[in-house]
Amino acid sequence: MVVVMGSDATDEMVRAVVDLVEDAGGETFVSRGKNRTIVGLLGDTDRFMALPIGGMPGVDEVIRVGKPYKLVAAESRQTPSVVRVGNVAIGRDSFCVIAGPCAIETEDQAMTAARAAKAAGAHVLRGDAYKHRTSPYAFQGLARRGLEILAQMRAETGLPVVTEVLQTSDVEIVASYADIVRIGARNMQNFQLLREIGKTGRPVMLKRGLSATIEEWLMAAEYIAQQGNEDIILCERGIRTFEPMTRNTLDVSAVPLVHRLSHLPVIIDPSHSSGKKELVAPLALAAVAVGADGVMIDIHPHPETALCDGPQALTPDELMPLVAEMGRVAEAVGRPLAHHGRGLSAVGE
Amino acid sequence: MVVVMGSDATDEMVRAVVDLVEDAGGETFVSRGKNRTIVGLLGDTDRFMALPIGGMPGVDEVIRVGKPYKLVAAESRQTPSVVRVGNVAIGRDSFCVIAGPCAIETEDQAMTAARAAKAAGAHVLRGDAYKHRTSPYAFQGLARRGLEILAQMRAETGLPVVTEVLQTSDVEIVASYADIVRIGARNMQNFQLLREIGKTGRPVMLKRGLSATIEEWLMAAEYIAQQGNEDIILCERGIRTFEPMTRNTLDVSAVPLVHRLSHLPVIIDPSHSSGKKELVAPLALAAVAVGADGVMIDIHPHPETALCDGPQALTPDELMPLVAEMGRVAEAVGRPLAHHGRGLSAVGE
Amino acid sequence: MVVVMGSDATDEMVRAVVDLVEDAGGETFVSRGKNRTIVGLLGDTDRFMALPIGGMPGVDEVIRVGKPYKLVAAESRQTPSVVRVGNVAIGRDSFCVIAGPCAIETEDQAMTAARAAKAAGAHVLRGDAYKHRTSPYAFQGLARRGLEILAQMRAETGLPVVTEVLQTSDVEIVASYADIVRIGARNMQNFQLLREIGKTGRPVMLKRGLSATIEEWLMAAEYIAQQGNEDIILCERGIRTFEPMTRNTLDVSAVPLVHRLSHLPVIIDPSHSSGKKELVAPLALAAVAVGADGVMIDIHPHPETALCDGPQALTPDELMPLVAEMGRVAEAVGRPLAHHGRGLSAVGE
Amino acid sequence: MVVVMGSDATDEMVRAVVDLVEDAGGETFVSRGKNRTIVGLLGDTDRFMALPIGGMPGVDEVIRVGKPYKLVAAESRQTPSVVRVGNVAIGRDSFCVIAGPCAIETEDQAMTAARAAKAAGAHVLRGDAYKHRTSPYAFQGLARRGLEILAQMRAETGLPVVTEVLQTSDVEIVASYADIVRIGARNMQNFQLLREIGKTGRPVMLKRGLSATIEEWLMAAEYIAQQGNEDIILCERGIRTFEPMTRNTLDVSAVPLVHRLSHLPVIIDPSHSSGKKELVAPLALAAVAVGADGVMIDIHPHPETALCDGPQALTPDELMPLVAEMGRVAEAVGRPLAHHGRGLSAVGE
Repeated sequence: MVVVMGSDATDEMVRAVVDLVEDAGGETFVSRGKNRTIVGLLGDTDRFMALPIGGMPGVDEVIRVGKPYKLVAAESRQTPSVVRVGNVAIGRDSFCVIAGPCAIETEDQAMTAARAAKAAGAHVLRGDAYKHRTSPYAFQGLARRGLEILAQMRAETGLPVVTEVLQTSDVEIVASYADIVRIGARNMQNFQLLREIGKTGRPVMLKRGLSATIEEWLMAAEYIAQQGNEDIILCERGIRTFEPMTRNTLDVSAVPLVHRLSHLPVIIDPSHSSGKKELVAPLALAAVAVGADGVMIDIHPHPETALCDGPQALTPDELMPLVAEMGRVAEAVGRPLAHHGRGLSAVGE
Repeated sequence: MVVVMGSDATDEMVRAVVDLVEDAGGETFVSRGKNRTIVGLLGDTDRFMALPIGGMPGVDEVIRVGKPYKLVAAESRQTPSVVRVGNVAIGRDSFCVIAGPCAIETEDQAMTAARAAKAAGAHVLRGDAYKHRTSPYAFQGLARRGLEILAQMRAETGLPVVTEVLQTSDVEIVASYADIVRIGARNMQNFQLLREIGKTGRPVMLKRGLSATIEEWLMAAEYIAQQGNEDIILCERGIRTFEPMTRNTLDVSAVPLVHRLSHLPVIIDPSHSSGKKELVAPLALAAVAVGADGVMIDIHPHPETALCDGPQALTPDELMPLVAEMGRVAEAVGRPLAHHGRGLSAVGE
Repeated sequence: MVVVMGSDATDEMVRAVVDLVEDAGGETFVSRGKNRTIVGLLGDTDRFMALPIGGMPGVDEVIRVGKPYKLVAAESRQTPSVVRVGNVAIGRDSFCVIAGPCAIETEDQAMTAARAAKAAGAHVLRGDAYKHRTSPYAFQGLARRGLEILAQMRAETGLPVVTEVLQTSDVEIVASYADIVRIGARNMQNFQLLREIGKTGRPVMLKRGLSATIEEWLMAAEYIAQQGNEDIILCERGIRTFEPMTRNTLDVSAVPLVHRLSHLPVIIDPSHSSGKKELVAPLALAAVAVGADGVMIDIHPHPETALCDGPQALTPDELMPLVAEMGRVAEAVGRPLAHHGRGLSAVGE
Repeated sequence: MVVVMGSDATDEMVRAVVDLVEDAGGETFVSRGKNRTIVGLLGDTDRFMALPIGGMPGVDEVIRVGKPYKLVAAESRQTPSVVRVGNVAIGRDSFCVIAGPCAIETEDQAMTAARAAKAAGAHVLRGDAYKHRTSPYAFQGLARRGLEILAQMRAETGLPVVTEVLQTSDVEIVASYADIVRIGARNMQNFQLLREIGKTGRPVMLKRGLSATIEEWLMAAEYIAQQGNEDIILCERGIRTFEPMTRNTLDVSAVPLVHRLSHLPVIIDPSHSSGKKELVAPLALAAVAVGADGVMIDIHPHPETALCDGPQALTPDELMPLVAEMGRVAEAVGRPLAHHGRGLSAVGE
């Protein structure tokens, strides 16, 4: 059960709710966000429902949520959430295209990809400075130098950027450069990292774990939301199955299921799910049609020389017609591509 | 390696090729189809390539196929195949909608569903008289009475019909009623059944097994093709994974992969893959966008009373707007819905 | 719900039970076995429990079974079943070793393997004349000639034999040669084949399907039992997962689970589950310790030249110390290896 | 490729090797452990093999390892490693029993379980102060108070203890209390945590990830080893599959595979793999027989009131006969239970 309070609720008002519940034998947690404060109640729900919470000062709503996640549950909001980065709104009204290099390898490679992504109509750029590699002997990213190149990608194109953070010790620096901080599949249940990123207040993209159920994924998002940060974008990137022809099996059903269970937006990563560039276009089109709120696509000026995941990257020339085709499918299902804003609101404001 | 011979190749011409190969120490199999005859060669491919087969009478082409399936491999044909039933062409030029009841339960239920499917624009009707049930204590279908109702569905609507066959002892009767005979997921590797159906010459729909890889699926199709029957439609219906929210995980990536590996058409069954009616529309739209050659959708006039798979059936009222939306997405990706012909060519002619 | 009647119950007695239930609106099925007759009741169990069935002539017991399988359920018997072949008893009192070639390739190969298996202490021989091959271009077995060699293996060693049947058209001939007829993993839900084999009355070994749940496996066994044949041995042979180092993932937990849910014996196939000979010994020892009722092990005099599954076959020299070690573990867990009888009871008598 | 140097190799000797390799265009990493120093070489192995490294001062051995993990590979050691904690040696010579409560809930519960574990013959105690919970609303452990109780368990019984660490911020305090620090399945690829724990020099138990391949598991261990800490115990705890009757599917084949690929010891957790107490005994016996180097078993004085994973805990009364039976199986396979030492070497010395 959750008690929704306005952003103008005072500490005393929140305290009064907490005291009433704890006197009745319940436990509480308080999540203060930008636009609302949530008091979550754990314990005997029937008993809580009998308390006069609804009429207390500062309380907007009392909602019964019978799920192991509450703040991110569909029931806890009247309308789906929209995550705003720069002038882009990621949510159910429009379809958002994120593109860029998997890893930032050199300034030249990254800037070429960034310009091409913008020219093709992308709304957000991707590019990783830190890489999660299964083997300690694989390329691990350019680190801080990569973040500087990322800043240059943003400065020149005016587009917001998303990049991955691997560990708590990098959260501060990554959040200072990124418009959206991404948590990779292998870190989906790294709860320490989820909490630290939640505290930054920076929008977060949370990838689904390799073998995470949809419910586990939403519970992971709840760890972020509990820090008062509900600007979360979920990203489906395929699950591990027995089929060897694709790196992972893209679970498109996850999109309509997440939309029913949660108010959060959900996008699809056709590049990492398939691991094969020839599948990127059909899977991206399927993403639009199944109702995803966006896609994230790897591009590389010279995929054959990529240090990471080359076989799945499109060339800039291949991206442009794909964005156009996604636009046509988006129109057909009544959710056009997102608009481009007129400038970049400064990060950190 | 396969030797492609024309439909006018005589038995002597075929025999000559076989003798030449066997004298060189190879094994052969001969598959005589409607439009071509294939001689498959097993053994030392390099040695066979050195034989003067290309110039022998009746030989159109000699193709090297380095895969464990040959007749259904993309390499073995110059253009993708098209399966014609009645006036409908199932293949890559257009998108085909198959709809109808999962199981035929009563005349009334089946005829209502058939009329609704036609009114909504379906090109082919489905309806099963024999049901594959995991428990021997579940409803097993109306058998011959069900086939009679199926014939009535076809007669009244003028649409071709697809229905499942469960066992070799039913092949003859099912093939005498059906325009397309379907092999279910649990029978995908029932090779005796594959061969018996292959021999009927009737178009076949082959569902992917619960945990079959794409390569195993194509090898199963090869068992049918070896009987001289290449009128095969593959049907992706989800694979078994750990995710409990859907009955199976729909593997949309299978569609572009099959299109690269094989000349056969491939459709998607959004009803059986998800097991949930609220997922049918988004998955059907994804099927169009990912490039599938059709969909097969369960409908039921009263899903709440269905004897089999009620929770996944759409009502007739829900089908019509979905077909319209699939049509819009099909236009957007340049593959419009299939045309309806003007009448039903009699089965068995 | 099932009604258990003695083997001396007359047709009239059975008929009386059936009539009473059907008058009460229920459906029935009758399964006449060697040692008992079962009348299964489908419908409103509470209503049936109120009927005076328990006191009717010929009725031994009325048992409530709330599972989708009934005859093979643990509740339907007071003690676990024992399947007797020749002088060997397969069940929970002792541990049974089955060994022999995967496929019968030549008389020499098969007889060498048979003698070695006997010398090592095996209780039953395996050897397949028909092979289930995913690709139609792989070795498919010696067919009838293989069965003749199988008969020779039995004649010379005095040990009973198990061999696979692939299709209904072979059931009669295979059952005439085999002491135990085996159904392979890919045929676990080939219900036509299950029923046909059930009718032969010959003991059956039923392998678990590639991605079958334990419940589905028991429901498949129920199809056999419904034909009056409860001489069924289950065989766990690994399930399909994402792990690439083994062909399948051996699910040892299935053994204690089956023992709780069913009265049937269950054995383990360490050869086909792993696909690697170096894993056969540790997995066979694990099979003994986890409580399996036996193992089935591939051996081959010259694994490097095997036409089928060579990499997983032990040599005869490797089998003997393994049987000895299995014997020591069996003693340690209080279930010694099965005894060898003094002669072979003729098959078919 | 790795260069093994003695523990007495000076910094200059190591530097000389590094310089030689880097001059030849290679990259290096240095891992200084208690008993040896490893210089790993990344790049053109053929070229490195031609360098005169073998004769350089301080170099014991040069080993070619063609795997994505090197320090933990079997090739990098002449004999399997043994991890010593207190007076217990965990390795291939004997079988080790770890037991105790899943979570430390109260002093009373934990001390009762600890005494029972010791009485039953356990060699190491388990007990978690921090719990990894998928839902943020589940019991998260007693934290520091739990560690104090853990210290009491060790003090009273004289047995070493293993406990889980969830996040880098707890590494220092957990390592100061634990004899073995455990990394849970969900953290298997939390590389920051792996490195931090590696640096403590404390023995580590690394659980296999929910859907980690064996190769990925060994690569995760390599991240720890690279910090100079090779006292690593692997723990198989089941993988995620489609089978719903067990929480996970215990992959016993992982044990002999790890033993071939790596010099590290590997144990089995029958409690968390199955999630069912009735499976714990058969799976623990299978663990002994398959060659595992130990088991870790949950016990609880009152499983029905446990705050975490009660359904899988044995009572103390159930543990004692199981340890005895494991002892008999261990004798049968020639690897007796580990000996108990005479006292506890102080932690941190």
